[in-house]
Amino acid sequence: MNKLLSSWESLCAGSGALRFVDINLRGIGQVMFQDNPLTGALFLAAIGWGSYAAGVPQVALCGVLALVVATLTALWLRVDQASVRAGLYGYNGVLVGLALATFIAPGPLLYAYVVLGAAVSVVATLGTANATKPFGVAALTFPFVLVTWLLLLATYGFAGLAGTALPAANVIAPFELVVDTRPSFGDFVQGVLLSVSQVFLKGSGVAALLLLAGLAVNSLAAAAFALGGAILAVVAAHLLGAESELITSGLLGFSPVLTAIALGSVFHKPGARVAAYAALGTVFTVVAQAALNVALTPLAIPALTAPFVLVSWLFLLPKQCFRDDANDRAGS
Amino acid sequence: MNKLLSSWESLCAGSGALRFVDINLRGIGQVMFQDNPLTGALFLAAIGWGSYAAGVPQVALCGVLALVVATLTALWLRVDQASVRAGLYGYNGVLVGLALATFIAPGPLLYAYVVLGAAVSVVATLGTANATKPFGVAALTFPFVLVTWLLLLATYGFAGLAGTALPAANVIAPFELVVDTRPSFGDFVQGVLLSVSQVFLKGSGVAALLLLAGLAVNSLAAAAFALGGAILAVVAAHLLGAESELITSGLLGFSPVLTAIALGSVFHKPGARVAAYAALGTVFTVVAQAALNVALTPLAIPALTAPFVLVSWLFLLPKQCFRDDANDRAGS
Amino acid sequence: MNKLLSSWESLCAGSGALRFVDINLRGIGQVMFQDNPLTGALFLAAIGWGSYAAGVPQVALCGVLALVVATLTALWLRVDQASVRAGLYGYNGVLVGLALATFIAPGPLLYAYVVLGAAVSVVATLGTANATKPFGVAALTFPFVLVTWLLLLATYGFAGLAGTALPAANVIAPFELVVDTRPSFGDFVQGVLLSVSQVFLKGSGVAALLLLAGLAVNSLAAAAFALGGAILAVVAAHLLGAESELITSGLLGFSPVLTAIALGSVFHKPGARVAAYAALGTVFTVVAQAALNVALTPLAIPALTAPFVLVSWLFLLPKQCFRDDANDRAGS
Repeated sequence: MNKLLSSWESLCAGSGALRFVDINLRGIGQVMFQDNPLTGALFLAAIGWGSYAAGVPQVALCGVLALVVATLTALWLRVDQASVRAGLYGYNGVLVGLALATFIAPGPLLYAYVVLGAAVSVVATLGTANATKPFGVAALTFPFVLVTWLLLLATYGFAGLAGTALPAANVIAPFELVVDTRPSFGDFVQGVLLSVSQVFLKGSGVAALLLLAGLAVNSLAAAAFALGGAILAVVAAHLLGAESELITSGLLGFSPVLTAIALGSVFHKPGARVAAYAALGTVFTVVAQAALNVALTPLAIPALTAPFVLVSWLFLLPKQCFRDDANDRAGS
Repeated sequence: MNKLLSSWESLCAGSGALRFVDINLRGIGQVMFQDNPLTGALFLAAIGWGSYAAGVPQVALCGVLALVVATLTALWLRVDQASVRAGLYGYNGVLVGLALATFIAPGPLLYAYVVLGAAVSVVATLGTANATKPFGVAALTFPFVLVTWLLLLATYGFAGLAGTALPAANVIAPFELVVDTRPSFGDFVQGVLLSVSQVFLKGSGVAALLLLAGLAVNSLAAAAFALGGAILAVVAAHLLGAESELITSGLLGFSPVLTAIALGSVFHKPGARVAAYAALGTVFTVVAQAALNVALTPLAIPALTAPFVLVSWLFLLPKQCFRDDANDRAGS
Repeated sequence: MNKLLSSWESLCAGSGALRFVDINLRGIGQVMFQDNPLTGALFLAAIGWGSYAAGVPQVALCGVLALVVATLTALWLRVDQASVRAGLYGYNGVLVGLALATFIAPGPLLYAYVVLGAAVSVVATLGTANATKPFGVAALTFPFVLVTWLLLLATYGFAGLAGTALPAANVIAPFELVVDTRPSFGDFVQGVLLSVSQVFLKGSGVAALLLLAGLAVNSLAAAAFALGGAILAVVAAHLLGAESELITSGLLGFSPVLTAIALGSVFHKPGARVAAYAALGTVFTVVAQAALNVALTPLAIPALTAPFVLVSWLFLLPKQCFRDDANDRAGS
């Protein structure tokens, strides 16, 4: 693996085009905190398969378009080279592209919207990183959430963009108490896998396996925490009585998966005490996901990864408790 | 009084169990900024009486459960000893426990929810303290508000938890213009007392007197500002034409009471200029309370002490105006 | 022009009363970032004309009342002299007064409300400035937005204050998809001019010309970016299919105008790269304006200049990208 990567690195060193590809692949990998082009390639395969299987190829296309625009914007803004090369200005862009194409009907204005959102995502990433640096926490996917929320909310005011996959306009849905039914084993496995794949807004078991493979090639701990976080989220959601369909489609689990990876394997050195802390954060992310689903109902926009960002910031701010265990992680 | 406290301190020095009790009592006292176990004991009596009189003993029970869980969590997270001993990791916990048991129907999941909320309240307290330290302001009850809001919102998505005392689900209440009627003297006194007792989510005149006594044994200034803040809030709310029932039940006054104590006696040295500043903040907290009541209507959750946190942060940030008058107050 | 200003300055140096007038005029000028009493006088004329022409003279009156109260509050709080003299504690006050009188029916409580809001606006300005200083960004009009939102929301809870120009209480308006029609040239010009005048909550072409003249006497770049920002906002809003009436009345353009001035001429040195960056921010402010219009619908309050504050903070935080081009601008 390392040999393969070092050959690739030599190739990139000699070619601006390959370097550009490398940066973009790392950008995809950074959605789950992995600075590795092979991880990015496997994630890209997951995105492609998930879009193709769901019959929405424009979603993958918009993801790639946004990624490239974001990288070019970062170069235009002359940001620091090391962060650009690590893909840290790409991961929010690719998510903006995927989300806009998932929730908005295709059309020429959608592509303009993706380009606008991708460019602004870089400004937002720079801004968030500067704002959070004094507190020693990373920007996470806050830029993606902020930019996408504004763009999606605005579609209700723009006749040129129709939010087909958004809750219907002209209706403010009231809260609905939900009833839980005991899940079958198949439902449970599906809920776990789709919790992983929904990180990229996809409901696909194959995509989930590709994502776990992509994590494993760079960090076995990250893959383990992703899987463990998904299992814990599905179990906690069932115990609390969340709606079965929501759990089985992975929609309560993708934010907890990111929290588990971040708290368990990225920003702290893995260990028993850190694992317990990450588990607490993961369960609370399930609560935060349910809470934001309710809070955003009157606005008819999805929570995206806001629960992950909120809970992870809360759990990363008390740095003093894990100072000895801390990994260094610059930039993101 | 001082002699009693120093005897108690000697007892605690010799016994881990008594020290643990001491820490928890101080935690209750810190809800109103008092680092004093006797104050905490009187506040605990107020909580107990208020719960017993209202026929909801589980509320006091959940408050104590949350307090103990929060203190244990702080010990597990190895936070700084001085802050633990001053009860600074307990006050948000006890409020989380009281609020969850006030708004959610009793049942096994309620207790699990209280334990989860109490544990997370400590993380949130550590995180908020780190986030606000560069600005020279304290965490106040922001951790309580944030954690409780998320837990209450999430109940609408969890069949296992029924928010009996929350506004009904399936209904988004519209704004209602309210009509004021001139209050009797009895109503006025009740409004003032219940504004104090509602700090602990209780509508009880006896509890209010216990709370004022608890403040007085540690700080006469704090007791005076609590009472003055309550009077000012009730008067301002009547002048602005707020709903009489809301005023008389103390629901517009508990946040202003906390603002008055904080701005008038805790974070500034009491004096005429500081009192005028605190009065301005207290009146504006009445406005903020009414505003948040409206803003949270579509979400069907209570404002809790968010108006106090918001206005106090706003009024504490301009430190340069009262630099010479400033008290030192570490940690919280 | 410079001679006129230096004669005025000599007069002010010799008279406390004229100095007070000077400070207040500069306070009006600072709404659009101009520290110049002549600019302020022209802006005041625009406010006066706009109020008179619309038949609401109390709006201009409340604006001036709030301005004077804010300046007196700043003096009472003993804040730094240089910022007071530059009018930096007045611009939020004048906006609070204009907004409250625009949205609330006249009456004795309105004037009390204006005084309260103006006094608190100074505290909020000091607090926001302290909170944003570590990040190298200015307070902008955040204090105005925060204080006015709270005061307007609270009117729904106070019988003494009727929000006549606010969306009706007792109704939560659902989102409405809007249809765009191709604008005439006259509509286009009107949209551009009213985008400028709506910065001061006025829909008046004469007021817009007075405002542009006020900008031009202090900074031709500021006037150019104001006009350019208005044109860009109107074009972008039409391309995205926003409601024609909203565009033509300037209600989608006033925040973008402020963003264009701030990003293009105040906080960066004007130039081609800065202009492109400001254009990106200006277009995104149109999106943010449409988004906040939707998000605030359930709360029945206007967005005010929140879209400008949000987007400008986001675009000003990445200071490293324009370090060499940066203007110094203290205080605000």
